[in-house]
Amino acid sequence: MAYWLYYWPSIPGRGEFIRLALEDAGTPYTDVGRERGANAVAEMLHFGEHFAPPILADERESVSHVAHILTWISRPLGLAPAEERDFRRMHQLQLTITDLVTEIHATHHPLGPSLYYEEQQQAAQRASRLFLDDRLPLFLDYFERTLDQNPYGNEWLLGERCTTLDLSLFLVLHGLKFAFPKAMGEQEIPGLRRLRDRVARRRRIRDYLDSDRCIAFNSDGLFRYYPELDRPVQ
Amino acid sequence: MAYWLYYWPSIPGRGEFIRLALEDAGTPYTDVGRERGANAVAEMLHFGEHFAPPILADERESVSHVAHILTWISRPLGLAPAEERDFRRMHQLQLTITDLVTEIHATHHPLGPSLYYEEQQQAAQRASRLFLDDRLPLFLDYFERTLDQNPYGNEWLLGERCTTLDLSLFLVLHGLKFAFPKAMGEQEIPGLRRLRDRVARRRRIRDYLDSDRCIAFNSDGLFRYYPELDRPVQ
Repeated sequence: MAYWLYYWPSIPGRGEFIRLALEDAGTPYTDVGRERGANAVAEMLHFGEHFAPPILADERESVSHVAHILTWISRPLGLAPAEERDFRRMHQLQLTITDLVTEIHATHHPLGPSLYYEEQQQAAQRASRLFLDDRLPLFLDYFERTLDQNPYGNEWLLGERCTTLDLSLFLVLHGLKFAFPKAMGEQEIPGLRRLRDRVARRRRIRDYLDSDRCIAFNSDGLFRYYPELDRPVQ
Repeated sequence: MAYWLYYWPSIPGRGEFIRLALEDAGTPYTDVGRERGANAVAEMLHFGEHFAPPILADERESVSHVAHILTWISRPLGLAPAEERDFRRMHQLQLTITDLVTEIHATHHPLGPSLYYEEQQQAAQRASRLFLDDRLPLFLDYFERTLDQNPYGNEWLLGERCTTLDLSLFLVLHGLKFAFPKAMGEQEIPGLRRLRDRVARRRRIRDYLDSDRCIAFNSDGLFRYYPELDRPVQ
């Protein structure tokens, strides 16, 4: 099965959740935005089927929303848990990642996506402090506990093999460490750190992260490093 | 099939998306929060399976996240489209509603859920103006177009019968009119207005909205009316 990914070419952003799954599975795909430019991505929105990228298409259909795309491709890619009940739970946990990602984005854009960061920097500092104090620990504890409670052992979040959910949580942990190095250093999440390292050691993920296909985190994406947002003065 | 809904007892909030589906289908359910209080809802989070309400349970399992719950119950409730492809698309569109709902909540809580509105009112005024100017029209146009492009006619968003997606969009339109009466009065969405009225006329929905089971919008929920946020001074 061949896939076409439509996502903005200059940022890892939300498209990176999809790239990691395709890369880990070694599935051929065309990164349309990087091959043909941002206009080719914007064109996909004109038909009215999708509200926003990332959009993933195969020969038959196209699908948007990160959690929905991952659930769609996880079985063909061999990245789904074996049990039906775990499969449903995987989607549920992926939606919690969606919520976390929205809150992460809101730390630098609390007033909305149509202003630059510099135009909402003060609000961003207040929002980040609240996020780091009140919200981030809740999410991390929740995932640490999920890992700890997996009846198949605590290598992966669900079942006994790596799923799209583990790859997504890896990206979130990796991105959070980039964006909030001080605040992340303070978190007590031994299980999640092992999970992150376990994913980073997977051969195809390692190859991908070292390759030109992987765009580094930068100042336009979802995960951004602004020192003034990381553990701001209380 | 009997269901148990776990949601905060004093607000319609995100639980209302689930209530509308259960009510429209005439399915028996226990509204645990309203019968046994908020503690019974909070208890459900202690097991670590769910991050936040609403949670819906049947005899066998429990599921959280609005879009995930609705997709789970839409077929047993007779509120799913007939075609498999439309069923997947329904989930995708429901996730766009999830995003819209998050942005609506952020109009009054842009800095995060752990401060009261009064503590972030100025930021809320800026956030609301951006939302009403830049974001709301994008979402409404998208859904108006979705309705217009339905090959089965434009009574419902997908296919030829009412689905959980139509019920959810009804709630969003109803809530937006409550929260932003002036701004909503300006929107050109004839198809969506007809859809809203069509849902409001459904017998069980009408009965529910008139009943004690239905909690009115108030100053603690997702949809709140603060005159200063509705079309603020430019």
